[in-house]
Amino acid sequence: MNNNEVVSFERIRDAFYVYCDIIERYGKGKEGSPIGSFYIGCVILGSLACEIGLKALLALEDKPLHGHCLNNLFNNLNPQMQESIIQYTSYELESFNNALLENKDHFVKWRYYYESNQLAANYDFIFKLFYSIKTHLDTINPEYQTPDH
Amino acid sequence: MNNNEVVSFERIRDAFYVYCDIIERYGKGKEGSPIGSFYIGCVILGSLACEIGLKALLALEDKPLHGHCLNNLFNNLNPQMQESIIQYTSYELESFNNALLENKDHFVKWRYYYESNQLAANYDFIFKLFYSIKTHLDTINPEYQTPDH
Repeated sequence: MNNNEVVSFERIRDAFYVYCDIIERYGKGKEGSPIGSFYIGCVILGSLACEIGLKALLALEDKPLHGHCLNNLFNNLNPQMQESIIQYTSYELESFNNALLENKDHFVKWRYYYESNQLAANYDFIFKLFYSIKTHLDTINPEYQTPDH
Repeated sequence: MNNNEVVSFERIRDAFYVYCDIIERYGKGKEGSPIGSFYIGCVILGSLACEIGLKALLALEDKPLHGHCLNNLFNNLNPQMQESIIQYTSYELESFNNALLENKDHFVKWRYYYESNQLAANYDFIFKLFYSIKTHLDTINPEYQTPDH
């Protein structure tokens, strides 16, 4: 597959579920581990999973997009999907947009967190966004609605 | 901290140990999880840890480098350090160089593994390289030589 080929929705959706597995497995190992590194890992993996999940939803709308910026990906979804994702996070529209902007590029920044002195992440927002994206993908793919996912 | 500032050896070394924690925690959650996604996570996290570890060793030699390519980072280490890292992996020189070239950019490729049909990774090599880098960083920093690391 070269860069010009369009990756199918199913293929990206399955990759999103692989990241769900990775996050779940990572969470299992929490006990007895330093909380600082646990938090860093959660921010990196959670942000990457949001990115892949949004790309899967975009592929479903025939809008194959690249790049890490979550706000750019999100803003290219159709308005109904955007509204539904926001609603599930329980954030008000303005708070959601502000949080999305503030947390748009953690995968880029946090993997090299040691290069910066002023990193902040809204963990609550990242995981609400993650679960909202997952819920929407689950709905589109009923075969994945099992207790494992 | 802006992009022009040099990040200290200690700071990058500590980040490497955070990735060691992340890998250890991830490994703890292996039981009962799909082996395919476990493998993908190991390749991504192991490759990123090798990158950060090599950058720490380069910082120690006052050679701050950016970029993901492991062979470029490795080849900029002083020859004695290169030789010592190779020796610890138990690979012969030519095999090591070939494997390094074949496994140089997994962090870039595997995080979007679904975009490619022909990905391969030498898991044995990645983790031997990881443990060799860790052993060298441990030796430089005796305070980290605990059973936890």
